Amino acid sequence: MDEKANGPKLTKGSRPIIDWPTNPMVTPLLTDLYQFTMAYAYWKAGKHQERAVFDLYFRKNPFGGEYTIFAGLEECIRLISNYRLTEEQIDFIKSSLPGTCEDGFFDYLRGLDCSELEVYAISEGTVVFPKVPLLIIVGPVAVVQLLETPLLNLVNFASLVTTNAARHRFVAGKSKMLLEFGLRRAQGPDGGMSASKYCYMGGFDATSNVAAGQKFGIPLRGTHSHAFVSSFTSPNEIIEKSLRSCDGSRTCEDFVGLVQAWLNKLQWSPPLRGVFGDTNQSELAAFASYALAFPRSFLALVDTYDVMKSGIPNFCAVALALSELGYKAGGIRLDSGDLAYLSTEARKLFHIIEKEFNVPGFGKTSITASNDLNEETLDALNKQGHEVDAFGIGTYLVTCYAQAALGCVFKLVEINKQPRIKLSEDVTKVSIPCKKRCYRLYGKEGYPLVDIMTGENEPAPKVGERLLCRHPFSESKRAFVVPQKVEELLKCYWPGTSGSAREELPPLKVIRERCIQQLELMRPDHMRRLNPTPYKVSVSAKLYDFIHFLWLNEAPVGELQ
Amino acid sequence: MDEKANGPKLTKGSRPIIDWPTNPMVTPLLTDLYQFTMAYAYWKAGKHQERAVFDLYFRKNPFGGEYTIFAGLEECIRLISNYRLTEEQIDFIKSSLPGTCEDGFFDYLRGLDCSELEVYAISEGTVVFPKVPLLIIVGPVAVVQLLETPLLNLVNFASLVTTNAARHRFVAGKSKMLLEFGLRRAQGPDGGMSASKYCYMGGFDATSNVAAGQKFGIPLRGTHSHAFVSSFTSPNEIIEKSLRSCDGSRTCEDFVGLVQAWLNKLQWSPPLRGVFGDTNQSELAAFASYALAFPRSFLALVDTYDVMKSGIPNFCAVALALSELGYKAGGIRLDSGDLAYLSTEARKLFHIIEKEFNVPGFGKTSITASNDLNEETLDALNKQGHEVDAFGIGTYLVTCYAQAALGCVFKLVEINKQPRIKLSEDVTKVSIPCKKRCYRLYGKEGYPLVDIMTGENEPAPKVGERLLCRHPFSESKRAFVVPQKVEELLKCYWPGTSGSAREELPPLKVIRERCIQQLELMRPDHMRRLNPTPYKVSVSAKLYDFIHFLWLNEAPVGELQ
Repeated sequence: MDEKANGPKLTKGSRPIIDWPTNPMVTPLLTDLYQFTMAYAYWKAGKHQERAVFDLYFRKNPFGGEYTIFAGLEECIRLISNYRLTEEQIDFIKSSLPGTCEDGFFDYLRGLDCSELEVYAISEGTVVFPKVPLLIIVGPVAVVQLLETPLLNLVNFASLVTTNAARHRFVAGKSKMLLEFGLRRAQGPDGGMSASKYCYMGGFDATSNVAAGQKFGIPLRGTHSHAFVSSFTSPNEIIEKSLRSCDGSRTCEDFVGLVQAWLNKLQWSPPLRGVFGDTNQSELAAFASYALAFPRSFLALVDTYDVMKSGIPNFCAVALALSELGYKAGGIRLDSGDLAYLSTEARKLFHIIEKEFNVPGFGKTSITASNDLNEETLDALNKQGHEVDAFGIGTYLVTCYAQAALGCVFKLVEINKQPRIKLSEDVTKVSIPCKKRCYRLYGKEGYPLVDIMTGENEPAPKVGERLLCRHPFSESKRAFVVPQKVEELLKCYWPGTSGSAREELPPLKVIRERCIQQLELMRPDHMRRLNPTPYKVSVSAKLYDFIHFLWLNEAPVGELQ
Repeated sequence: MDEKANGPKLTKGSRPIIDWPTNPMVTPLLTDLYQFTMAYAYWKAGKHQERAVFDLYFRKNPFGGEYTIFAGLEECIRLISNYRLTEEQIDFIKSSLPGTCEDGFFDYLRGLDCSELEVYAISEGTVVFPKVPLLIIVGPVAVVQLLETPLLNLVNFASLVTTNAARHRFVAGKSKMLLEFGLRRAQGPDGGMSASKYCYMGGFDATSNVAAGQKFGIPLRGTHSHAFVSSFTSPNEIIEKSLRSCDGSRTCEDFVGLVQAWLNKLQWSPPLRGVFGDTNQSELAAFASYALAFPRSFLALVDTYDVMKSGIPNFCAVALALSELGYKAGGIRLDSGDLAYLSTEARKLFHIIEKEFNVPGFGKTSITASNDLNEETLDALNKQGHEVDAFGIGTYLVTCYAQAALGCVFKLVEINKQPRIKLSEDVTKVSIPCKKRCYRLYGKEGYPLVDIMTGENEPAPKVGERLLCRHPFSESKRAFVVPQKVEELLKCYWPGTSGSAREELPPLKVIRERCIQQLELMRPDHMRRLNPTPYKVSVSAKLYDFIHFLWLNEAPVGELQ
């Protein structure tokens, strides 16, 4: 890999300084054809090196909420730092463009990398709002244009699913364990991988996805399925029945017999009589067998036949047998039915058993629930009252079922130092011109009050100094603010030839903590599910005037007929 | 790679006989942790080699429709045929399971592949219905279980997005060009890649996604964006203005001047006076520049400033200048506003120009539309009347916004020759036991009438012979059928040790054609958007009786209190 005279160092020996994108399918070809046709047209017009500034931002918060979490930055920087077209890729591009395209263009592509680019970005895991650029890309217009599609692709879903995870955490509450179980229903293999990564970032505790555990170091969780239970027919099929006690001091030669003895005790125990009847024997076999394999982490799926009549008594019998050998059972998982009712009933039984058989802590046996959960069902469970300790959430979480796409856009705001504005009859689609700086202003109570965008060369807002914040498009909406803290939002993650220092990409766990802290910092009325208050996004008085000057300049004057 | 004595040949020299999955992230680790914990429990109980049969199927057609297209099979077979765990992967699994797990299990994983598996599947691109297995996997229970998550992942989104594409094609009609433009909004990189592949399969004509063009041979389309238009300021910035005529016989030294002369002619032409006024000069510069780069395929995005006042007149001026040099312009793209109105008005103008300036074919100039389109907006456009020739569809198509997940499940139906049934209080969730055969029965008019599942060893339905088809769960729903054609739906795509021939995986284009033909074969009332008729899925009388015998055997008898 060549190194441009003043560009950033891209490699250290033969190893890239920043790793390749997680998904090897992320290459410079993962873009729209029109980025290449435009690159050719720019090149043909001699405009390809013109210095352009593009903003990447979204216009509306997802899921009917008033906040979004920015995610996907690391993957963007990985792509940018390793951006080079191979000969094979260039051949393919050549074959996809008209035969009249001149060879010089392909020579240009051969030498193309991102060393002349500057990338400014909000830190990954930050709470963000509409219109404020998440990324500002500065560089030769043809190169920046080629990056439009992959950057949008890498930011859109990442931010959407992180936000979805944060919203699920918000409803579930801090004390619950949240498990992402969505791989099988995700939109393709890395729909699943990305969901696992970004749900963890957004506040989940663990995933079922083994590949994501390996790739990203996310804690893994999982037990068994209904198929495991129904693969057994009777306790007689268990051949190896012995189990060593937890402390290794003795061996129970017939663990299955011990389980059956406990089941019998439960069935005849006075406070449980009539509750615990005959249970399904194939289920009992499956549970006993699973406990023999995992005596230290026995967690049973209890709804294959009948939760109250079979699953829970069978679980309790196995758990009590384990307890006799010094083990503590992991708990139960409910995957169907009325989760509020079943978890409450299960909890009652666990408490009765703790008391009746003097098993300290049995009342607190963990209950996991996992049947088509989403924000609404979690909210409904809270309202009904439940005894669930952990939620396994899949389909609705990872596919962002409530809103399957975030609409980030990538707009030209300056070229050759000339500001550009994109007009639209829909005022929310008008872009904010110029290379900008963005600040978050904090109030007395420590909450963020407002984000403000200014022209690049305006002085930064100062702590304690009164400042006018204006709505970018609405003349009458404006407010004075005296910030108690001023935070510059965009940092330099790829310095190009600017000479700035490169902001480091933190590990996933650090981003996750940052994200959780950020969410806690917000004023609660912005975060609530019902009718949240919009967070204010503003421009400086100077930028406001400039926007409206340009707008009038560019907009055609209508003629009423 | 080892070859089991009677297993299928997995390699040819060092090259796999069937390629690796398209996305390198698809490995044996792309599964839920519980598949490995269950594999361990099966192994510990000595059950891991028990021969199990699993059905992969869905319960409900997506998007409120009555059909689904099955897709994703090739990727499933690619995974199965190359399924081996690496040492590194085994180490990771070991570190993720409790330390008490015995080493023998990891030795077992070391030798594990899919050579003992049999895979029966419906051909990719077939129209399919709820409850009928899309895949039947037969093999050692532990191995089949490990495949559950990746197979579901590979089939769920593939089938969902192919169905979505087919539904968009149905509304748009056969004569329209359909372009998939979704990469930037897709759920991650291979959300985009899969969407491009499967939208093509479902009847789209082309994609904007260059990587998908390279990987799958899908035709590519694309022109330029708003940013290209706003990157220009005036025609004066165009330096190289000469353009050779299409036949090479002469050179126009000032193409920009020629464009301006045409714009002037248009503005003063009597039938257009008052329609064509002053246009935006930066847009004119962008169009002229783009035409200089692509004289043979000039297609202009006309809504950056004002479609009727600026975009269309500027396009016409450039197109007429090109026409004078023997080139035919590619057309316009509309990306905002009232597409029905704008396309109709544009068509009128193109016809006027064809007549006024005697440019044969100008009236038929292609109109592409591309603003947040989906089934509903296409339907609304049809009802209003429009003149759009090609639709570019993104977000709603590729993220399956109307329903972001398909709920395929993977159920154990037999183990050790013993049938298994999964009961549920929700009757639609009861599984159909036994290894089955599935047939599609055709009626006199050539339409498929009903799908029927039978036990493995029942005789196949015969053409011309009366047969009772029963609803699997509803006693009163049954019908006699005299099939005019009988099609066995599942073929052997991975023979394992069965000695069957392996069905070849056809190329994408062949699957696409099959899919289009299949859709045309269906009775129209199953396909309509509003209140479609459900297609019938049945079981043989013998299988019906067996299901209900098992059901009564397994279900607990309730007690009213």
